[in-house]
Amino acid sequence: MTAAVPAAFARPSGRAPDQLRPVRITRGFTKHAEGSVLIEFGETRVLCTASVEARVPGFLRGKGEGWVTAEYGMLPRSTNTRNDREAARGKQGGRTLEIQRLIGRSLRACVDRRALGERTVTLDCDVLQADGGTRTAAITGAYVALVDAMQWLRGRGEIKRDPIVGAVAAVSVGVYRGVPVLDLDYAEDSDCDTDMNVVMNDGGGFIELQGTAEGHAFRRDELNALTDLAEVGIAQLVAFQREALAL
Amino acid sequence: MTAAVPAAFARPSGRAPDQLRPVRITRGFTKHAEGSVLIEFGETRVLCTASVEARVPGFLRGKGEGWVTAEYGMLPRSTNTRNDREAARGKQGGRTLEIQRLIGRSLRACVDRRALGERTVTLDCDVLQADGGTRTAAITGAYVALVDAMQWLRGRGEIKRDPIVGAVAAVSVGVYRGVPVLDLDYAEDSDCDTDMNVVMNDGGGFIELQGTAEGHAFRRDELNALTDLAEVGIAQLVAFQREALAL
Amino acid sequence: MTAAVPAAFARPSGRAPDQLRPVRITRGFTKHAEGSVLIEFGETRVLCTASVEARVPGFLRGKGEGWVTAEYGMLPRSTNTRNDREAARGKQGGRTLEIQRLIGRSLRACVDRRALGERTVTLDCDVLQADGGTRTAAITGAYVALVDAMQWLRGRGEIKRDPIVGAVAAVSVGVYRGVPVLDLDYAEDSDCDTDMNVVMNDGGGFIELQGTAEGHAFRRDELNALTDLAEVGIAQLVAFQREALAL
Amino acid sequence: MTAAVPAAFARPSGRAPDQLRPVRITRGFTKHAEGSVLIEFGETRVLCTASVEARVPGFLRGKGEGWVTAEYGMLPRSTNTRNDREAARGKQGGRTLEIQRLIGRSLRACVDRRALGERTVTLDCDVLQADGGTRTAAITGAYVALVDAMQWLRGRGEIKRDPIVGAVAAVSVGVYRGVPVLDLDYAEDSDCDTDMNVVMNDGGGFIELQGTAEGHAFRRDELNALTDLAEVGIAQLVAFQREALAL
Amino acid sequence: MTAAVPAAFARPSGRAPDQLRPVRITRGFTKHAEGSVLIEFGETRVLCTASVEARVPGFLRGKGEGWVTAEYGMLPRSTNTRNDREAARGKQGGRTLEIQRLIGRSLRACVDRRALGERTVTLDCDVLQADGGTRTAAITGAYVALVDAMQWLRGRGEIKRDPIVGAVAAVSVGVYRGVPVLDLDYAEDSDCDTDMNVVMNDGGGFIELQGTAEGHAFRRDELNALTDLAEVGIAQLVAFQREALAL
Amino acid sequence: MTAAVPAAFARPSGRAPDQLRPVRITRGFTKHAEGSVLIEFGETRVLCTASVEARVPGFLRGKGEGWVTAEYGMLPRSTNTRNDREAARGKQGGRTLEIQRLIGRSLRACVDRRALGERTVTLDCDVLQADGGTRTAAITGAYVALVDAMQWLRGRGEIKRDPIVGAVAAVSVGVYRGVPVLDLDYAEDSDCDTDMNVVMNDGGGFIELQGTAEGHAFRRDELNALTDLAEVGIAQLVAFQREALAL
Repeated sequence: MTAAVPAAFARPSGRAPDQLRPVRITRGFTKHAEGSVLIEFGETRVLCTASVEARVPGFLRGKGEGWVTAEYGMLPRSTNTRNDREAARGKQGGRTLEIQRLIGRSLRACVDRRALGERTVTLDCDVLQADGGTRTAAITGAYVALVDAMQWLRGRGEIKRDPIVGAVAAVSVGVYRGVPVLDLDYAEDSDCDTDMNVVMNDGGGFIELQGTAEGHAFRRDELNALTDLAEVGIAQLVAFQREALAL
Repeated sequence: MTAAVPAAFARPSGRAPDQLRPVRITRGFTKHAEGSVLIEFGETRVLCTASVEARVPGFLRGKGEGWVTAEYGMLPRSTNTRNDREAARGKQGGRTLEIQRLIGRSLRACVDRRALGERTVTLDCDVLQADGGTRTAAITGAYVALVDAMQWLRGRGEIKRDPIVGAVAAVSVGVYRGVPVLDLDYAEDSDCDTDMNVVMNDGGGFIELQGTAEGHAFRRDELNALTDLAEVGIAQLVAFQREALAL
Repeated sequence: MTAAVPAAFARPSGRAPDQLRPVRITRGFTKHAEGSVLIEFGETRVLCTASVEARVPGFLRGKGEGWVTAEYGMLPRSTNTRNDREAARGKQGGRTLEIQRLIGRSLRACVDRRALGERTVTLDCDVLQADGGTRTAAITGAYVALVDAMQWLRGRGEIKRDPIVGAVAAVSVGVYRGVPVLDLDYAEDSDCDTDMNVVMNDGGGFIELQGTAEGHAFRRDELNALTDLAEVGIAQLVAFQREALAL
Repeated sequence: MTAAVPAAFARPSGRAPDQLRPVRITRGFTKHAEGSVLIEFGETRVLCTASVEARVPGFLRGKGEGWVTAEYGMLPRSTNTRNDREAARGKQGGRTLEIQRLIGRSLRACVDRRALGERTVTLDCDVLQADGGTRTAAITGAYVALVDAMQWLRGRGEIKRDPIVGAVAAVSVGVYRGVPVLDLDYAEDSDCDTDMNVVMNDGGGFIELQGTAEGHAFRRDELNALTDLAEVGIAQLVAFQREALAL
Repeated sequence: MTAAVPAAFARPSGRAPDQLRPVRITRGFTKHAEGSVLIEFGETRVLCTASVEARVPGFLRGKGEGWVTAEYGMLPRSTNTRNDREAARGKQGGRTLEIQRLIGRSLRACVDRRALGERTVTLDCDVLQADGGTRTAAITGAYVALVDAMQWLRGRGEIKRDPIVGAVAAVSVGVYRGVPVLDLDYAEDSDCDTDMNVVMNDGGGFIELQGTAEGHAFRRDELNALTDLAEVGIAQLVAFQREALAL
Repeated sequence: MTAAVPAAFARPSGRAPDQLRPVRITRGFTKHAEGSVLIEFGETRVLCTASVEARVPGFLRGKGEGWVTAEYGMLPRSTNTRNDREAARGKQGGRTLEIQRLIGRSLRACVDRRALGERTVTLDCDVLQADGGTRTAAITGAYVALVDAMQWLRGRGEIKRDPIVGAVAAVSVGVYRGVPVLDLDYAEDSDCDTDMNVVMNDGGGFIELQGTAEGHAFRRDELNALTDLAEVGIAQLVAFQREALAL
């Protein structure tokens, strides 16, 4: 990224503008799921499990294709002040539905659904602790859980070829106090002008791009700078995924 | 837009790649609302009403600021096959919630909420007939309904200065059979590789940008071409809004 | 009608006691539905669509009979002050359910369900603008949409004989300031003593009759005068339906 | 009633066409409610309780008026085959809402809400055993429970004058095998052409009248014959109410 | 029970510590259900019906076994102050679900589900009047209704051997003002230190035991004394059941 | 425990009948909550957070007392096969409500609500991994989270004296293959005759006791043996709590 950063600029965390938070990926975090990953982007911690079931939704029945879907939730006290439990309120809020639709679309982008066969993989992404970027951590971790579940299927001889086509990761970028920064934490997220979530594959292609002007509208050059930053971050996240899967 | 278009390329509607559908904006479509606009993007027709109420949500009470929110719905047979009525199913689906959150954020971006005072404006966007692009038509029409509602408030002497700061419009762009095109209709939308909804203001700033790879991931140059097209379309839509408001 | 009308009596609209509001019936108002009718009783405007689906409810499966059902809704700002959107509240109110049950029963009265075969026709009646009499307008308009849908079925050769047996129309009558009047608008409806909705067929038979004393209880002679008025109104509405269908 | 009855005609119960089923009204059936009445129309048994609370709905607050409302339910096995419990299904059905709205409107017609003061009376009508006519039994019994609750209020000196203005009772009438009959039981109700519920006061005025053609449409002379029958039945029911209240 | 009772001790009802309230069991209370019992524990009155249906839940389909389940409800004014109707609130509360799960488990303990065959028996326990102990009365009465339903099945030759294996009854015990007492009424229940519901069979075996310290924690010797009392009460209740079934 | 254990008896885990699973209590597991504890009973892992809010439910307002309540949830894939997410299904099941009511009652038993002042403590118990005994682990862990939250309040000087009066812990006991055993894991729980959950305080008093005969009814001597075992287990759990709090 080439834009000049003002001398006095500092991120709350002390990170450089193009620096990710420490990323940790723990496979096999719980024992029942076919894939189970705890992913940490700094203090944000999301448990991502992949569950395989031998059934597909009605619209796919008999077509020889599988399905990948996602559900997202925050534990009531994963946040600074307690949020109502959605199960107790009797419905999932708009933000929750929006995020789980995003996770589902993102992960379907790296799956050959014919190779999966008539199976459904459900990616449950539950936020244990939130500090900004829960949806991007969820996508990045769900990919690893998904790969583990596919390995489990292959290990049992249930599928012949690997349904995974490329890797998928996600990161947030934003304009904080005039400077484009990578991987916003909560302190930055709640005080920034523009916030963009970017989902990419390991070939550098865009899968999802959702930008929102929180304060003033953003300009074309800011869009470009943010997209540059996202590319830098995704490349590193894909490397972390590979490393975790190599263990 | 400078990308070369293959000779054999044709849009289902016969439009040029950078051509909007015919746009019609009818103010005062119904009589009760403070603002009531029927907007048509070709065969897509959305009724947008703005309702002013002298109350604000709990989190704004006593702060001297107003609120702008939106609700979106499709009549059950606005689409090719009948959809269940959300009121009968007992909940709004994820797509509906996602769209109405987008409309609300977009319109709040052009309102000075202090100038509005402790009032809520609800923008109801109901799709009478759908042919692709209902959310972008809704945003573009809701802006006109909102301006009319603000005029109504000023006409009654309830507010002193105009809360509207700039215009807001929205358009979809996408890659259809390899060619970036503007303002997708249903035939294109259901058969395209990439679909992006862009919300901008009349100063050329981006308010929202939501791109999704439906088939293969999109490249940076496609992102650029799509953004170029969106800028062209938005400029024309803002002109249509102005024209309608000048009547 | 023979009851003496006091010299000083005037309806808010200036109409004679036995005068309907201007009625307009627009067929083909939207393009997707098998039948689509905008009906206007003065300023009351209801969009009635008929959707044909090749399935029947569980209790009719395998019996060789079809089903006709209705759903009713008001756009949130079809009324003078905004009503909560039922989809957002998570349930349809008692008034809505009562009206859609009435519409369904009324239209089933003119359909030979054996001739329809194992199909369901759903009549969606959505109020775009309300000024009294929305349920009677809905029934009168839904009949026209239903006839169009049956023509569509016959045009495709799916059914052999016409399932429509006679016409159905509806009108409200009431006692306003002591005088029985036909087709109440909102100003009358909210200030009348007795309100009665009457559904009849074109043979002069009663299908539904629902009278409510809003103020004092009504007498037998008032019931008779109201029923007389309803017969007058229905005959005209049936003529309007015929005229619209002849186009 | 003067219409000729065919020689071979017989009601399933052996009753004459204008004969009510045996009516029993038991006051004080349960101990907690301010009014508690078990009403029996033959084998139909409805428990009607009147509960007085010192609060009114929001729209009446501070107006010095009271409110009367009703709720209706059927025990799951009050009917021949078990119905789902509405509490377990998570909502009240359309029929339930329609009936409880009818009961509420009917009973409000005999209450001076100013004399009641800022209190709400809730009439709970729960069907213990159903054999046709549950809504008319409910209205007739709820009136007695309401009177008892008003006596309770007067006995405590909470109100000065009696809020009850006249009596209210209800009965069903219908055309069974071509003959107008009074007070249909289930065997008749499920096999009749026209069914009408009539609510009247003790002055012979109509409060509600809801007629439905189940088979063929009904004619004006049938409407007249049914209305005659209803008048006969209501007069007897009002006498039974008086007798029960005199104990 | 051997614990010394203080001289000044008196129960609100004047009963001895180990004395049940008067128990009344009325079979055939309503006519439609296969078993229908009104049970009274003093002023607590619960209507228990047993409904037999020729279907089983999904998890039992094709296994040759039946199912026994229960639903519980309180009429809104069965209590001293009116409770919201659960059907109107749109959900059953936690207490209701807890009680109906308890009733279902208790009654399944006395049924040979193979002998029942692929049938479901639903035990609806509806409280007409509450004065403490509604769940124990419900279990005790539901047993009698269940036996009647099984007799009905055998009478029709649908089952060969009796699915009932032993009797089931329930009673509450508690520590009231320091003294263990049997069968608490509302006055005791709302003012006691420990409350325990005990379900036993006629062989003296425990089926369910649910004790709760309302005030201070209870000691092992209190647990023993309460269990002794429960055994005394259950033996009497089983005798009452037998007597009722012998009629 | 003195009952003779058959020679061939073995628990699936190889534990002695009166042996707990390894217990681990991790305080400060997440950072936002006033108390946050991960408790492990073998492979069962429950995250217990205590959230303090300066408000009380309506029925306590203005009384100078606080409230302690609990919510319970299982992550969808905490179990062997995936369970539906309760937030997505739109309601909490009966088992969930029953458990969270039990946790709430149990913890209220060790709190002086006057000392707490007008505050609510919500104990969220979310099961990350289930292997039997989730409710007993939840109660035991929630106690530690609650103590931490009270320390937090005292550290800020918001309360003067400690609201905690004694410790609370819980354990399950059951009869597995004829032998009473302590702290059942899933393999035992799904194959046992009797299952009892016991909540006690550190003074040896019983707070809750819930026993269920899964197979045959249990006898008085079994009840005694199980209660003995529970006392042994609770004493150890209280020691683990003390140890964890001493760190």
